[in-house]
Amino acid sequence: MIIIIKAGQEHMIDELQKRFGTTNDVFVHQNRVALEGITETDLTPDERAAAEQIIDNPPKAVQGSRLFHLEDTIVKTAHSEIGGRHFTMMAGPCSVESAEHVMKMAAVAKRGGATVLRGGAFKPRTSPYSFQGLGEDGLRYLRAAADAYDLDVLTEVMDQDHVDMIARYTDIFQIGARNMQNFSLLKAVGKTRIPVMLKRGMSATIDDILNAAEYIAAGGNHQIMITERGIRTFDNQYTRNTLDVGAVPVLQKLTHYPVIVDPSHAAGHTEFVTPEALAGVAVGASGLVVEIHDDPAHAFSDGAQALKPDEYLEMARQAFAIRNTLTTPVEEKSEVEL
Amino acid sequence: MIIIIKAGQEHMIDELQKRFGTTNDVFVHQNRVALEGITETDLTPDERAAAEQIIDNPPKAVQGSRLFHLEDTIVKTAHSEIGGRHFTMMAGPCSVESAEHVMKMAAVAKRGGATVLRGGAFKPRTSPYSFQGLGEDGLRYLRAAADAYDLDVLTEVMDQDHVDMIARYTDIFQIGARNMQNFSLLKAVGKTRIPVMLKRGMSATIDDILNAAEYIAAGGNHQIMITERGIRTFDNQYTRNTLDVGAVPVLQKLTHYPVIVDPSHAAGHTEFVTPEALAGVAVGASGLVVEIHDDPAHAFSDGAQALKPDEYLEMARQAFAIRNTLTTPVEEKSEVEL
Amino acid sequence: MIIIIKAGQEHMIDELQKRFGTTNDVFVHQNRVALEGITETDLTPDERAAAEQIIDNPPKAVQGSRLFHLEDTIVKTAHSEIGGRHFTMMAGPCSVESAEHVMKMAAVAKRGGATVLRGGAFKPRTSPYSFQGLGEDGLRYLRAAADAYDLDVLTEVMDQDHVDMIARYTDIFQIGARNMQNFSLLKAVGKTRIPVMLKRGMSATIDDILNAAEYIAAGGNHQIMITERGIRTFDNQYTRNTLDVGAVPVLQKLTHYPVIVDPSHAAGHTEFVTPEALAGVAVGASGLVVEIHDDPAHAFSDGAQALKPDEYLEMARQAFAIRNTLTTPVEEKSEVEL
Amino acid sequence: MIIIIKAGQEHMIDELQKRFGTTNDVFVHQNRVALEGITETDLTPDERAAAEQIIDNPPKAVQGSRLFHLEDTIVKTAHSEIGGRHFTMMAGPCSVESAEHVMKMAAVAKRGGATVLRGGAFKPRTSPYSFQGLGEDGLRYLRAAADAYDLDVLTEVMDQDHVDMIARYTDIFQIGARNMQNFSLLKAVGKTRIPVMLKRGMSATIDDILNAAEYIAAGGNHQIMITERGIRTFDNQYTRNTLDVGAVPVLQKLTHYPVIVDPSHAAGHTEFVTPEALAGVAVGASGLVVEIHDDPAHAFSDGAQALKPDEYLEMARQAFAIRNTLTTPVEEKSEVEL
Repeated sequence: MIIIIKAGQEHMIDELQKRFGTTNDVFVHQNRVALEGITETDLTPDERAAAEQIIDNPPKAVQGSRLFHLEDTIVKTAHSEIGGRHFTMMAGPCSVESAEHVMKMAAVAKRGGATVLRGGAFKPRTSPYSFQGLGEDGLRYLRAAADAYDLDVLTEVMDQDHVDMIARYTDIFQIGARNMQNFSLLKAVGKTRIPVMLKRGMSATIDDILNAAEYIAAGGNHQIMITERGIRTFDNQYTRNTLDVGAVPVLQKLTHYPVIVDPSHAAGHTEFVTPEALAGVAVGASGLVVEIHDDPAHAFSDGAQALKPDEYLEMARQAFAIRNTLTTPVEEKSEVEL
Repeated sequence: MIIIIKAGQEHMIDELQKRFGTTNDVFVHQNRVALEGITETDLTPDERAAAEQIIDNPPKAVQGSRLFHLEDTIVKTAHSEIGGRHFTMMAGPCSVESAEHVMKMAAVAKRGGATVLRGGAFKPRTSPYSFQGLGEDGLRYLRAAADAYDLDVLTEVMDQDHVDMIARYTDIFQIGARNMQNFSLLKAVGKTRIPVMLKRGMSATIDDILNAAEYIAAGGNHQIMITERGIRTFDNQYTRNTLDVGAVPVLQKLTHYPVIVDPSHAAGHTEFVTPEALAGVAVGASGLVVEIHDDPAHAFSDGAQALKPDEYLEMARQAFAIRNTLTTPVEEKSEVEL
Repeated sequence: MIIIIKAGQEHMIDELQKRFGTTNDVFVHQNRVALEGITETDLTPDERAAAEQIIDNPPKAVQGSRLFHLEDTIVKTAHSEIGGRHFTMMAGPCSVESAEHVMKMAAVAKRGGATVLRGGAFKPRTSPYSFQGLGEDGLRYLRAAADAYDLDVLTEVMDQDHVDMIARYTDIFQIGARNMQNFSLLKAVGKTRIPVMLKRGMSATIDDILNAAEYIAAGGNHQIMITERGIRTFDNQYTRNTLDVGAVPVLQKLTHYPVIVDPSHAAGHTEFVTPEALAGVAVGASGLVVEIHDDPAHAFSDGAQALKPDEYLEMARQAFAIRNTLTTPVEEKSEVEL
Repeated sequence: MIIIIKAGQEHMIDELQKRFGTTNDVFVHQNRVALEGITETDLTPDERAAAEQIIDNPPKAVQGSRLFHLEDTIVKTAHSEIGGRHFTMMAGPCSVESAEHVMKMAAVAKRGGATVLRGGAFKPRTSPYSFQGLGEDGLRYLRAAADAYDLDVLTEVMDQDHVDMIARYTDIFQIGARNMQNFSLLKAVGKTRIPVMLKRGMSATIDDILNAAEYIAAGGNHQIMITERGIRTFDNQYTRNTLDVGAVPVLQKLTHYPVIVDPSHAAGHTEFVTPEALAGVAVGASGLVVEIHDDPAHAFSDGAQALKPDEYLEMARQAFAIRNTLTTPVEEKSEVEL
């Protein structure tokens, strides 16, 4: 249950924590106290009297819920504020390929308005015999490129034992779709205070992803973003996945975490990445994360879905223009007379 | 196969039609001749010599293919041109409920910039005991409302035996998702010369819908639109269907027919209709078809997904603004120097 | 609602029909009266007193529901009883190809224990340019072959205008997956008294198919079978569809109509048809409908999924053996002591 | 590529390993040598001459492929042989709840013919606030119960850092559906020589699961089983997942690893578990893994899908009877004369 504490009764927040905190999960945000496993009949008359409102049966993923935490979470890094009224471009190569290459891509990313440089140093590959990433060397190159252009680093962590090491290089952890319910990994990044971009699993429901995010929040890390990157459906002959644009406003209603769209993994083919990116902007996402490459045919991974620099710059121009269109206030709102 | 005839060899088009037309399906568009069931070895040396290019193994749905018909089809009605550089708003109630009500909705539709008034008089309901529509009376009310506001009529035909009757009232036939592979119905509307909006079935692949459209084209009716209205996936707790925005650019690549987005049936809940509509515009659809109602709680059908007049007008304003943003030429295109 | 009438109060059945039958849908089965759109507050004290039990909110598809009709429906034809304790084999070619060929296939079907001969004369083909069936000639050949071997005929009707004509040849109508929600066609076969095999649509939920069956029952035709033939999922690289075996016991719980399994369209490849057929038997289906062909490579349609005669006979032998195993009573049931 | 070495040329196996083994992945099984990243043009004339046959483009998951390893893998533990002509029953509670309870369940499992006792001590729960398992205490109870009844232990490992600890208690590692592509975990169990049951992810394709298994094989652990446990589809109103029975013969064709069916997670509701279990047997699975509980309403997890002891014993009786029916040789095979 969630108890909304009346003004003037704030002392009750502490008391509830003391009384229930040793046996139950108790979370506090402003004047809201979430008590896991407690129902109204467990409360004393005084406790009940301190409540402005009681919300029974909130979602299990209570810390991520708008019922517990009304206002938008803003994820803050050195160069970015993500969520709320902000719109954030994140771009970079699928894999870090070399110090030179990622430096070049950082320049392109920056030119398109990105404040975050993405790049994989540890790659979750379907086959054990495929290129698995440059490892810590890749992280070094990525960090250097980001620093050269005043960008944040976003990179995937696949293995809970790498969390500390990767933390030395990155500004944002990415949890990939395949690891969305790798609960040990979620707990590991939940113990850090580094922002986490959690990608939706291929067949994860909305509730699944909110519960996965809750594993991170349960560790005390609330700097979380959720990324829609396409789901697996019967329809994958021409696109790699089906971008579930509807998930963006649904998530925005249910949770306060920023919602990002990844059109690259959804589309899977360069020619469809830009339209899907723009759909993501128009549906209201707080940002885009896109893969770029200057020579896709020779990319170490996922070249088929990379935007070339000029394609990326044109996409970014249109994305910012649409975002601007959406958020421009209208002088005279239409009025309907019937 | 498709034979692209050389300039100066146009007489060969007639000859191919004569030689193969009695035993095989032969279609001609400009200098392209599609021959179903014929391969290069069936051609005479003269026929081969007249070919600028031969395309082996085009899609089965050859008349709908860009390989056969390069330029965009423009669907033309009294008040609308749909496809190509045009953007068309179509709006109206789910069901025609009364003469007065549809008239009121026509006024709203028009105010939002619609040129097409949608409304159902024959309703495909999941249960035989649900409201099945007002029938021909409904068509009369719909026609009157459209005429009062200079709008085209779009209404569903569910039954091949109704085609002639509905043709007296409508400007565009709608084939619903459940009937997408009702081949008798497709053939029946294919014999008319009235435009057809074909809605994608809930689990239809891209090729399925192109083949369904081909049943209409095979009858000689080429005024076809394809509408993406959401597909059925594992994810339907918060939205009714999953709007497959990626299908829009995929279809636009493969076929010359206009592609329309129906955000109402995709979202299924009013609060998500506008974001999905805007995603449809940004992804490049040639138009939107949306359900509106002034009193959704008492709508005869599908009230949960209807936009109220002011919601519709605001959505339409944003939709046209985004479309405008997308199609505005950039004075100075960015150039990339690496 | 459903009212279960007390013993001795049977006169109330007539009275309820009279009072509500002109304005509402009223259905009677034994001592159960289903009243569409009526709630308990609409009843008089006498009517309530006559009720042994009142079931509020039964499924919309009430006539098909076990709440209205408890005992298994047995579909009866000249040579078959389908449902209940019976197990029925149905086999034949995908398409009727010639009088001779279907005669040969009838002999094979019979040898394997089939009592129903399937065969298509009107084929719902994805492409308008594919073989569409032999039409009425095919029906004649099919009828002759079935008669020669004392088999029932099962054949698809795709078009409501063909119902009367096909009725002259068939013992069972098949409604194909693509037409599962072609409501005009469902109504048309609902007006006949010929048994109907309704195949589940590719993305039809359990409730969708029960509602589709209700369209047939609403016309007064209660001789209905439901066929699971595989659904469309993300997984179709090695099989054509995903056989949803769980749908069989689910349907058997909810409805009294016999449930049949079609392993041919589910598997899509001969090598997987037999295992899927046996799974269908073991899960408890009342019968199988399978495609057979002596020369699959030259079949007019769907050769890739046809069983050759010896494969069919071995499958049938195993199917009957498993069915026998399932239904053999155990002399001494195990008892558990803990 | 795979090279099948001629009889008498076995020395070439060593030479190929020496020449390519330092730079490429090279695997040998009997007279077959799989060379990752090598094509025929890389071979010397002598090497080519030693080849009885060369298979280009085998699947990436080459060690699991029947092209590399023809005969069935038999997974061997103290009390079980799994795969090939064997049929193995595995049963136990979802969670280990107490020493006494798991002991009682072991007795039931044994009585039904099980040789493997399943039970979870570390539970992958959707919510961080749900019961997460008894941990190492649970493993102790599980081991004691298995030992008391001469059963093997099967238990889930969720965390790579637990592999060594769990190895002290278990005979078979289970990798759960959510971790199917947790590559770090797959690598960790691949380094052990303890058999692994790999459960198919909810939206994993056949190729995905074969590649996941290859991560284990790449570490040198070839004692692998693959378990079909239902996939996520649009159809989950009455069952939790859709049991993909077709995946069993498909996997058996492609890989030599035993294929097991888990009807409990597929059905999700007790009443449908037995029919799905029997479907799994009939489709040819090498075994079943089922959840049992004597008091499902109070189970710590997944009570809704547990079989009660008498239900389990009756299911097991039927399962063995069907398996017996399938594998009994027919004295006189039917012969078809046409």
